[in-house]
Amino acid sequence: MAARYVAAGAVVGMGLGGAATFFYLRQQQQRPAARPADVGGFGAAAAHPALKHGMPVGDRLRLFTDFAASFDTRLRNPRWVLEHINRGKLSSREGSRQNSEFVEDSGIERRFRSKLDDYRGSGYDRGHMAPASNHKTTQSTMDETFSLTNMSPQVGAGFNRDYWARFERFVQDLTKRCDDVWIVTGPLYLPQRSPQPQKNGAPGYRMQHEMIGSPPQLMAVPTHYYKVVLGEYGGGRRAAVGAFVMPNSPIDPETPLASFAVPLGALEEVAGLKFFPGYLSDSRREAIDETALAVQRLGYAQLRRLKPGSQPLLLPAPEGAAPVPVPIAAADGSVAVPPTDQRRALGAVHVCEHAECKLPAERFWESNGGNGGGKRALRRTQSAP
Amino acid sequence: MAARYVAAGAVVGMGLGGAATFFYLRQQQQRPAARPADVGGFGAAAAHPALKHGMPVGDRLRLFTDFAASFDTRLRNPRWVLEHINRGKLSSREGSRQNSEFVEDSGIERRFRSKLDDYRGSGYDRGHMAPASNHKTTQSTMDETFSLTNMSPQVGAGFNRDYWARFERFVQDLTKRCDDVWIVTGPLYLPQRSPQPQKNGAPGYRMQHEMIGSPPQLMAVPTHYYKVVLGEYGGGRRAAVGAFVMPNSPIDPETPLASFAVPLGALEEVAGLKFFPGYLSDSRREAIDETALAVQRLGYAQLRRLKPGSQPLLLPAPEGAAPVPVPIAAADGSVAVPPTDQRRALGAVHVCEHAECKLPAERFWESNGGNGGGKRALRRTQSAP
Repeated sequence: MAARYVAAGAVVGMGLGGAATFFYLRQQQQRPAARPADVGGFGAAAAHPALKHGMPVGDRLRLFTDFAASFDTRLRNPRWVLEHINRGKLSSREGSRQNSEFVEDSGIERRFRSKLDDYRGSGYDRGHMAPASNHKTTQSTMDETFSLTNMSPQVGAGFNRDYWARFERFVQDLTKRCDDVWIVTGPLYLPQRSPQPQKNGAPGYRMQHEMIGSPPQLMAVPTHYYKVVLGEYGGGRRAAVGAFVMPNSPIDPETPLASFAVPLGALEEVAGLKFFPGYLSDSRREAIDETALAVQRLGYAQLRRLKPGSQPLLLPAPEGAAPVPVPIAAADGSVAVPPTDQRRALGAVHVCEHAECKLPAERFWESNGGNGGGKRALRRTQSAP
Repeated sequence: MAARYVAAGAVVGMGLGGAATFFYLRQQQQRPAARPADVGGFGAAAAHPALKHGMPVGDRLRLFTDFAASFDTRLRNPRWVLEHINRGKLSSREGSRQNSEFVEDSGIERRFRSKLDDYRGSGYDRGHMAPASNHKTTQSTMDETFSLTNMSPQVGAGFNRDYWARFERFVQDLTKRCDDVWIVTGPLYLPQRSPQPQKNGAPGYRMQHEMIGSPPQLMAVPTHYYKVVLGEYGGGRRAAVGAFVMPNSPIDPETPLASFAVPLGALEEVAGLKFFPGYLSDSRREAIDETALAVQRLGYAQLRRLKPGSQPLLLPAPEGAAPVPVPIAAADGSVAVPPTDQRRALGAVHVCEHAECKLPAERFWESNGGNGGGKRALRRTQSAP
């Protein structure tokens, strides 16, 4: 089945550098007078004097049958993985993870891709970004999720096999209240406060994370993971959006999901990415972020009630973040933020308003008869050998 | 002149995500039968179920009149800057740095670009990647090099204002022996050996570098910088190539340039980039890297003769790197690697064979009457206020 996967997965693979060149080329065609004559070599793109021998080629865009990914060739991790799910897809059971194998992505040169050897004995799980269970329409679509381009080194016990798995199920369950759900998942490398201030007196920050594998082709171990979720409802006329960030470490199973809700704007700024650019205008993002801060505050309050004195891990805070203006009524384990008519009209509802912001029970797969053997399968296939 | 720059520099700015979408769209047009029908929203690209609301938008490609750059929206640094120089361009003196001002790049949204405030009082220089003195054909082309998209936080004394400035002059001087020279310059974030081994017993590595500015829009301080140089000679029928990596720290002015020569393959693997893809085939890269290792070894030998016991900063070594097979005859301060006929025929000559691998004297600008006030200007415009 590895061969089957490779055939399907390698259909479309390209360097963004190439795409950029191509796009530039087309722009040149549209305004031919603005540049000197073609000097040969790469067609119209070579008209720019700097481009004769090509632009540097970095990250790779990989389009699989049921999801898309951008692969970071420097840190040898996905930068983002984008997928779509709905009730129909999830009800299919043709694919089974017992039949899938982890495979390196032959669509990326060996020296830039992530390798089975990098994970071997590293102590980290090969953690799916697009979960296998979201893509079981056919065995082939499930196999594609086992490409290492879809993997990142995750802490297994207490995270990938526990809290993160429950979070993935929470996202799946959004299909019960949404017609279609789009999900972006990826790693983060969040700076830490440094004991030393900056020279200008501002607080100091330091990037620090482990690298595994063999130099010079090392693979980064992310400090955190994010998911951004967009769920359409009401026949596609409305959408709920939410962003979550979790540390790559064991998470106390009682921690409320709401405490991991983050403002989308701050996530975008640390990830260097704009999510769902076709949907998220600035005004929608701002409206959702207002609710996200309320959801997060509620999560912290719940957490401190459960574990007095506990301090959740925070994103570096947006400077001058406005105090949360929405009064919050907390239902036990769920979030009730009063949505305003303006926000509904704007299409800027938070997923934690539209659905209950509540994870499934711990080890939910053990009580899920229909998904028999799920937990065993999870352990067998997600942990590094 | 800020307005003039903005007009010129903002002509072409785009997200690679957008370019990728466009490229995918074109592929779709070429094979319309392979995908389900267009579901609206973004034209043919939306035919992939994951892409309805767009792909995440990250790094930006910026095409200036005389150079191109890819900007890393996560670390708020250029990823690479690509430029072309020749004798004709360098002989022009129309542009003067006294008339240029550092400006933020209005072609990138404020929350993703690097900002004047990030540098202010940081203790780091706003270090040009494409040097201003390479682009003085007009005042406008020089002004464009003062875009913060072309800047990275460099240590000033002992590096940007000294060894690095001499290195930039060395690259300029290649135009004396080459018809046309292409240069890629950019920052690196090199992992350090960690005191703790990996769980599988292999040596451990850790990424660690400072971040400056204000969260969540922090800017990284690179640990190193690279330049990859391609010089065409013999009427464009032949080319010499070389790659150099230097630490972002004061460098002893006596350190031989040759000790910073690195194998291009190893640099590409830590940078996550392939350079000059239109020229560098695998066989050419391998042939140049063989010479690069010889050049580097000679540099180390010279360094140890100058400073007994000294240890230069090394790139993580390629595993199982072949021992250098070329016998080396060292001229004092220059490199003489016997070139083979095969490598000349392949077009895989190292720049340190084609030209003397020797930096200009310290403070060369003080004795350079024609470039009067160069040093003062350098200090005034490159150091952070």
